[in-house]
Amino acid sequence: MNPNNIITLTTDFGTTDIFVGLMKGVILSINPDAKVIDITHDIEPQYVYAGAFLLSSAYRYFPQGTIHVGVIDPGVGSERRAIAVETERYYFVAPDNGLSSYALCKEKVCCAVNLTNPKYFLPQISNTFHGRDIFAPVAAHLSRGVSLNSFGEQITNISKISISTPNTSESEIVGQIIYVDRFGNLITNISQRLFESVQNGRDFMIFVKDRQIQRICRAYAESSAGELLGIFSSFGNLEIAINEGNAAESLEVKRGDSIKIRFQQWSSDE
Amino acid sequence: MNPNNIITLTTDFGTTDIFVGLMKGVILSINPDAKVIDITHDIEPQYVYAGAFLLSSAYRYFPQGTIHVGVIDPGVGSERRAIAVETERYYFVAPDNGLSSYALCKEKVCCAVNLTNPKYFLPQISNTFHGRDIFAPVAAHLSRGVSLNSFGEQITNISKISISTPNTSESEIVGQIIYVDRFGNLITNISQRLFESVQNGRDFMIFVKDRQIQRICRAYAESSAGELLGIFSSFGNLEIAINEGNAAESLEVKRGDSIKIRFQQWSSDE
Amino acid sequence: MNPNNIITLTTDFGTTDIFVGLMKGVILSINPDAKVIDITHDIEPQYVYAGAFLLSSAYRYFPQGTIHVGVIDPGVGSERRAIAVETERYYFVAPDNGLSSYALCKEKVCCAVNLTNPKYFLPQISNTFHGRDIFAPVAAHLSRGVSLNSFGEQITNISKISISTPNTSESEIVGQIIYVDRFGNLITNISQRLFESVQNGRDFMIFVKDRQIQRICRAYAESSAGELLGIFSSFGNLEIAINEGNAAESLEVKRGDSIKIRFQQWSSDE
Repeated sequence: MNPNNIITLTTDFGTTDIFVGLMKGVILSINPDAKVIDITHDIEPQYVYAGAFLLSSAYRYFPQGTIHVGVIDPGVGSERRAIAVETERYYFVAPDNGLSSYALCKEKVCCAVNLTNPKYFLPQISNTFHGRDIFAPVAAHLSRGVSLNSFGEQITNISKISISTPNTSESEIVGQIIYVDRFGNLITNISQRLFESVQNGRDFMIFVKDRQIQRICRAYAESSAGELLGIFSSFGNLEIAINEGNAAESLEVKRGDSIKIRFQQWSSDE
Repeated sequence: MNPNNIITLTTDFGTTDIFVGLMKGVILSINPDAKVIDITHDIEPQYVYAGAFLLSSAYRYFPQGTIHVGVIDPGVGSERRAIAVETERYYFVAPDNGLSSYALCKEKVCCAVNLTNPKYFLPQISNTFHGRDIFAPVAAHLSRGVSLNSFGEQITNISKISISTPNTSESEIVGQIIYVDRFGNLITNISQRLFESVQNGRDFMIFVKDRQIQRICRAYAESSAGELLGIFSSFGNLEIAINEGNAAESLEVKRGDSIKIRFQQWSSDE
Repeated sequence: MNPNNIITLTTDFGTTDIFVGLMKGVILSINPDAKVIDITHDIEPQYVYAGAFLLSSAYRYFPQGTIHVGVIDPGVGSERRAIAVETERYYFVAPDNGLSSYALCKEKVCCAVNLTNPKYFLPQISNTFHGRDIFAPVAAHLSRGVSLNSFGEQITNISKISISTPNTSESEIVGQIIYVDRFGNLITNISQRLFESVQNGRDFMIFVKDRQIQRICRAYAESSAGELLGIFSSFGNLEIAINEGNAAESLEVKRGDSIKIRFQQWSSDE
């Protein structure tokens, strides 16, 4: 696969400072034809898990050959590796701290390298900002067609962070809120597929904090204003929302909190 | 008119999440030459009115042929229509909830269609995120030259939301604060043209909350630091501001609040 | 030097409103091939000093020929001049209030002009938004190759704002916090070069508020979670940070606050 000129950025740098602008400047200095697209820069500082979730939710909407750069990098300046990975359809450039690992789980990895060749870095490397000094220039050179092997030796043991998965039994699913979006919607780790396989047509009750939800709407508009509802979100997972409201604030719930779905017992005479 | 490659986005998605990034990925997957420009993504969630005002203030600064995509979409997943509209100079793609209606009032509409042809949508349509699944791909196909009629049947009854207009008499104008900007400036619905036609050279007093303003400055710099002032804003409307301060916070005023201008009576012997 | 198609924006406009979008629309209307890159728009309103610092930290990471537009403009609509400056490597377009002066200190200025030729402005000039009406169109025309002299008469007396510099003696450096970044890191005006020249290998103690720091880490990862540390930041200056924490909040320190470094006295018998 050949890379295209599109480079995406997923970071915790925020947009208040100049960090993101600097990365774009470095990229354009190396490849003036690059198109740099922001996925988000407002991930909670150093919260690698959220970055991994969001990157894995976003990457596949971009054209084949896109180079996805992720920088949430609490270990910057330490011995943690910096890596570039080529899959059948995309490239990923990131610290080797699990940030790209959720996305990589869904892709066929062709090759991964440890970024060690200073030829493709900025001349001076700070100990605090590898986004500018290493990840941006590597992505830019990659987008110009430099082959992956030029950046460093191949590796096979890419770091992973564990994906929290729900606990399921015949009668219930216990999951977690893994992300709260700007609207205060609570994104859980319970996929529609898992839900439906356990539900098997049965009635159910969703328990979140001290509230209960009896049905899953097909659309926000199926509920009334202010109503607490369940819905399968655009992420593909169960989401708890308040129509025209903010579920996270109203329920005082945050990421990491648990959510339970209980399914009706099959009656004994069925 | 032919579309150009510029696609603007006006949404309430914020930039904390990946919603905007996904729309850009979808657009670039269909038209790699598209230039996607953010107008703003920080409209108060589901506040269609503000979106309509801002879009109508912004669209005409873009080159002819620009495709303006607006997504503030509380009715997503319901029966509300999705539309694309061609005017003499621009294209608009949005839910049919009035979001583009203020801009359309100022343009000559050539053709409007109901977006129903799934050929130009993503293969899978969620019930919560038509920005990604419908509006982005339609805009991208439009920018590649697909004709408007290919997207669905023509319609004539585009939804409008009512524009609040000031009440005027010979002696006063009673208007409304319709937008508060990042600086805390209060944008009213009182246009310079309306003001001047009623004023007709007379002295006047502006009343906002419990404060009074006696003159309209030509520039912020005509006032002193901390001074409450009236000025005709870059939106073309009367704006109430505090020089180097935040009028919304200081006056504890918010959108929807009223503002009154009283003009001096003509003396009886004139 | 020829300009390239890259135009950067550094403003205090925020991204909540449409100001930035309008500037991009105006630029693309004049030069559809322009690439507009955001450095940041979230500078504290009207805080020219921070803008000057950030612009001077960012501009040189962009390709030669880049046009840097800065708009923090409390004097908009007054008699303050608008200027365009060509240096050996870059262009700067900004109000003449010192915003570009820190960057210009580091560059060889070739030519500076007062922007007075309305041919390169929008047809209608507001008194509140020269970013849209003057700076954006001038930058766009510049990127198309219009020569600097076409925009107005040459000037030599560009306004400067004073750069706060630390006070140093043989035994101490007293500096200032000049910027607080999104992570709450405190960026000082004490450069690594200055520090090392005064230190001359001696032990030292950093005093900030009521806290003391004994060493300067090479990387965040050299410290433990929650530890208060000194580090030379990616800006090239001494930075005070808390590993995985927010130094500004924890220490209740803000920009303008002072910071002192005391160096060990040489013993008398050396």
